[in-house]
Amino acid sequence: MTTDLRNLSDSFDSRPIGVFDSGIGGLTVLRELISQFPNENFLYLGDTARLPYGSKSAPTVRKYSEQNMNFLISRQVKALVVACNTASTQVPENIFCGLPVYNVIDPGARLAATQTKNKKILVLGTRATVKSEAYKNKILMFDPEIQIQSIACPLFVPLAEEGWVDDTITEQIAKKYFTEIALPDFDTVVLGCTHYPLLKTTLQKVFGANISLIDSGSAICEILKNDFKNLKIKPNTTGKQENLKICLTDFGPQFELLSKQLIGAVTARKIDFETVSVI
Amino acid sequence: MTTDLRNLSDSFDSRPIGVFDSGIGGLTVLRELISQFPNENFLYLGDTARLPYGSKSAPTVRKYSEQNMNFLISRQVKALVVACNTASTQVPENIFCGLPVYNVIDPGARLAATQTKNKKILVLGTRATVKSEAYKNKILMFDPEIQIQSIACPLFVPLAEEGWVDDTITEQIAKKYFTEIALPDFDTVVLGCTHYPLLKTTLQKVFGANISLIDSGSAICEILKNDFKNLKIKPNTTGKQENLKICLTDFGPQFELLSKQLIGAVTARKIDFETVSVI
Repeated sequence: MTTDLRNLSDSFDSRPIGVFDSGIGGLTVLRELISQFPNENFLYLGDTARLPYGSKSAPTVRKYSEQNMNFLISRQVKALVVACNTASTQVPENIFCGLPVYNVIDPGARLAATQTKNKKILVLGTRATVKSEAYKNKILMFDPEIQIQSIACPLFVPLAEEGWVDDTITEQIAKKYFTEIALPDFDTVVLGCTHYPLLKTTLQKVFGANISLIDSGSAICEILKNDFKNLKIKPNTTGKQENLKICLTDFGPQFELLSKQLIGAVTARKIDFETVSVI
Repeated sequence: MTTDLRNLSDSFDSRPIGVFDSGIGGLTVLRELISQFPNENFLYLGDTARLPYGSKSAPTVRKYSEQNMNFLISRQVKALVVACNTASTQVPENIFCGLPVYNVIDPGARLAATQTKNKKILVLGTRATVKSEAYKNKILMFDPEIQIQSIACPLFVPLAEEGWVDDTITEQIAKKYFTEIALPDFDTVVLGCTHYPLLKTTLQKVFGANISLIDSGSAICEILKNDFKNLKIKPNTTGKQENLKICLTDFGPQFELLSKQLIGAVTARKIDFETVSVI
């Protein structure tokens, strides 16, 4: 790996933060990152040629995640954000090839464990995330007395991709999944897939206004703020922001449209799209 | 490519017919093939590490299809069946590396064009299949007077994979898609995705009993019957059937379960599963 020294000094680092997901879900994390760290540069990778990850096996998701991280590293990022819960279950390390790695599960689990008052948490995720028990194990590490139930909601991802984010059908599907809830008085729900914040309005309607919905995107920003403070990552204090770069492993006009809508709401930054290979 | 000569003579060929799809959808075609050609051997490939194909770009789907066909050829098949409509839009050839290729679009289009009485056909498919206009172009080649409308139904695949095949929610989603129908008096519907026959009961309920639903699996068998007759493919007349072989690019217990249910209904043949790489 060669490093462009013009971007790096003792006190600042203008290299982008690398963020990846299988598809559009990670944009909910990117949106939060851009909004909370407006001085930083970002490079987003959507592995759209192989999405979704949620129905695939653990070794396959690990292999894809490593390929994605190696691609981001080849593009000179200063940190790696795994903006996909399924991928996060297979990336336990905090350092990869010398760079800090942030997965969405640790901060989501920590925030949920802190916020619950009655110590009853519901976790929603893909089949792969639920099967991994990553949230359950992590929440219990913070507080072993918490009761947790996890439910896989495989249709939420295609519903979000279809744009049916606030729709009576989505509401009915949610209600059908939630007939499996055996822990009726939970006060906190972990949105354990980065697509799910797109369905927030519907989910809040189904659960009621008193239930806290934990969004990985907001949770990860708290951890990053700390690491900027203790200089584990050096901030970009040059005052110069580059265009936002979005790399996709498969060309998709629909992705472009949706990312412009989602990201355009929080920044005026121009977006450059590029189709890439990560294999 | 080396050929095992024990399997091949002037009058018979016991090599398997190779069938591929991205996932479980192609099993609806395989089920028909096994049921109509009980003497033949079959090798099925499900590219589950990269499913689904319906949301991916044309060049990516072509690349994946070629890799799948090359894999099947390396396993000594005697013919190739593209049991996926999206892949079929990118495999126009009838011969690949010297082997006959059968895609699902030609026979489906031919059957629909023959069956319609009022010359009004509705085509349902993935976003990629509808965008390709492959059915429309093919149907018009058979009869340029036919009126055709195509509608993309992206949620049908995850609904089928989820097993919600006869469910009021699936019915409502179908009705929501069908509000776009601008050709109200069609008499024939092409199920232009191999997953859709799994939703047949629901779709027949929504459309009414007088509408003909065209299933690619049944349609392709008519073409194969002809090619067995004219010896374009030699039949397996050895009287010996091997176990059914199902290769998957990603290990999946759910796939195994579903394929046993679907295929087990038409044959007592044992199924051997294998995880493979096609890259």
